[in-house]
Amino acid sequence: MYNVAILGFGVVGAGTAEVLSSNRDIIKSRCGEDISITHILDIRDFPGSPFESVITKNADDVFEDPDLDLCIETIGGARIAYEFTKRALSKGISVVTSNKELVSTKGPELLKIAEENSCSYLFEAAVGGGIPIIRPLYRCLAANKVIRICGIVNGTTNYILSSMKDKGISYDEALKQAQANGYAEADPTADVEGIDAQRKLSILSTIAMNGIYVSPDEIETEGISSVSLDDIKYADSIGCQIKLIAYFERIGDRCAAFVKPHFVNRDRMIGNVDDVFNAVMVEGDFVGETLFYGRGAGSLPTASAVAGDVIELAACKKSEFVQPWSVPASSVVVPFDEVKSSYIFWSIGDNSAFNGIDTVKLGDAVIINGITSGHAIELASKASSSVMNYL
Amino acid sequence: MYNVAILGFGVVGAGTAEVLSSNRDIIKSRCGEDISITHILDIRDFPGSPFESVITKNADDVFEDPDLDLCIETIGGARIAYEFTKRALSKGISVVTSNKELVSTKGPELLKIAEENSCSYLFEAAVGGGIPIIRPLYRCLAANKVIRICGIVNGTTNYILSSMKDKGISYDEALKQAQANGYAEADPTADVEGIDAQRKLSILSTIAMNGIYVSPDEIETEGISSVSLDDIKYADSIGCQIKLIAYFERIGDRCAAFVKPHFVNRDRMIGNVDDVFNAVMVEGDFVGETLFYGRGAGSLPTASAVAGDVIELAACKKSEFVQPWSVPASSVVVPFDEVKSSYIFWSIGDNSAFNGIDTVKLGDAVIINGITSGHAIELASKASSSVMNYL
Repeated sequence: MYNVAILGFGVVGAGTAEVLSSNRDIIKSRCGEDISITHILDIRDFPGSPFESVITKNADDVFEDPDLDLCIETIGGARIAYEFTKRALSKGISVVTSNKELVSTKGPELLKIAEENSCSYLFEAAVGGGIPIIRPLYRCLAANKVIRICGIVNGTTNYILSSMKDKGISYDEALKQAQANGYAEADPTADVEGIDAQRKLSILSTIAMNGIYVSPDEIETEGISSVSLDDIKYADSIGCQIKLIAYFERIGDRCAAFVKPHFVNRDRMIGNVDDVFNAVMVEGDFVGETLFYGRGAGSLPTASAVAGDVIELAACKKSEFVQPWSVPASSVVVPFDEVKSSYIFWSIGDNSAFNGIDTVKLGDAVIINGITSGHAIELASKASSSVMNYL
Repeated sequence: MYNVAILGFGVVGAGTAEVLSSNRDIIKSRCGEDISITHILDIRDFPGSPFESVITKNADDVFEDPDLDLCIETIGGARIAYEFTKRALSKGISVVTSNKELVSTKGPELLKIAEENSCSYLFEAAVGGGIPIIRPLYRCLAANKVIRICGIVNGTTNYILSSMKDKGISYDEALKQAQANGYAEADPTADVEGIDAQRKLSILSTIAMNGIYVSPDEIETEGISSVSLDDIKYADSIGCQIKLIAYFERIGDRCAAFVKPHFVNRDRMIGNVDDVFNAVMVEGDFVGETLFYGRGAGSLPTASAVAGDVIELAACKKSEFVQPWSVPASSVVVPFDEVKSSYIFWSIGDNSAFNGIDTVKLGDAVIINGITSGHAIELASKASSSVMNYL
């Protein structure tokens, strides 16, 4: 018997309880252990819940239980979740989480505590919801140097961008509909301004850099709130879609890492990822391009990933794979304005002779169709509405 | 130091040697062990090879070495590879392979020998080349019951079908070009008749059935040699592509498993997988649809997957995850003619009022646009050229 506690009985916590109980037999046959939920910690009451008998408001019930094998942290945020995670790991109790904010901001410290106490801190569900991406990166692709990652890692923004295009509606209208359908929160800032994607890219970049920590603060980030319906229509007219892309690129011993709206050519697999779906393209030096696609959010898909981590630890007791993350003396992220990227430039009407694509860095002059732009491009300030990253 | 031998220094074996040596430092940092190639077994000479000093023709040099930790079997086929694999596993030496023929035909026996001798038999590279698919199925998606798998798992046939469409050429011409470009073998039978896909589907189906063995012999298989350019043009005209699909579907405690050319709607991600690329769509009861995409063949992508398995065993010594496969008393595969599937029916010209899609099983009458077909469909004998599976 492998005893687990769920910390936080919200959307993902409840989903995880459902997955672990519904497929209990399959799971037992796969990992050789019967996984039992012995505690659920939450400050709320859940009268009538099938798990009522194990729900508690007292953290000591959980952490002082000598038979507890593992905690599932689905509280979210970086305050209480941080305290509880430290408390568990310090006692040698492994923790599995879907909490991208906590992993991306406190990953180095928490992984160190796990290592010192011979337990594991796993977070497959923190990026891409149900999509397997963390474990494939750490293991299946372990023989590769990661050259590039392009991810659509936020379902809310992808849903909004897809709605704008499919229904021909404005950003404001699409956001309202997303909120009405439960795909965007009342305060949508973290999603639409790219903060959620920034956290996920911090995690992916750190793994791609072999454990050298890339903090969210180092990731230049722009959301989708200034993307107009005209931008989307123009993209469509040339066989592209606008997508919020979390981009990583290895540059020698350093890397580029930024979150920006991009024109993505529909010839690319990632240009066909619509609605709330997510996808992460990983390019390795030997494997070439791979892509991982699926539901990047939602109770049950995310719970599927959480449960996968739980099953691994039930089978192996301790994961041999999650490297400690080390904070480098100076940032390994090349500043955004020093990174050469592909940009698309366009204007409708008189200046359309200048429409095209060039690979430049901030401040460079741009040459398209033999025409040189008369001014340095000020991408950072988004002075012109007719320039965007291109993929 | 973790000592490995490579059995068979062909395309994949040589690629694996290259991957393990080129990224030796990265690999060491990821698994905590320095992986050293101490033997390469092949009957040929390789004068001037950087690995010349470890190449041997004498199998005893490999199997009698007390310091050997693991064998990489990249011989292919099910004869010598079978003998060597049994010899290694019987001595408690783990084996990693890309050999789909051997895994699909002898998997139950070889996994049992591995279990009895406390070692592992891993085969991530046997399906989908470099694409992570076996490990995600066993682990990341371990909490799910697998409902459905749709795979483009053979690069040669996908290249031929893509060429026919893009260049407007016949099957014979496309096959000739594929052979000239090194994408098809001189005897292309195993690829074009679907035998390679059948073997891979046997492996995927067995894992999806939780270790209940689905033999290649039980998988109804049709290749692409009878797909005409007219078929492809018609598919294109209605927004579809013709793809060779390896299909698995859970039906209660049993399953459907077949390899057939399918019309695939381009609205699906898998309808956009072209050239030599592979993709596998896996639908789980909780995660929903996921898709894994990348290079399904080739020396280095396949070697990347082989090396990923080697790294895992170097880190963990023994995998806790590969279930033994059990041969059921009677087949769990529902006979093809009892399986309800979606089919597309079409004819050009007078009868086009009957063009459409219906979900039926072999022998059923078909009703489209209110019109009932006057005859039972004889799909098995492909009596009509205007019917194909639809996805």
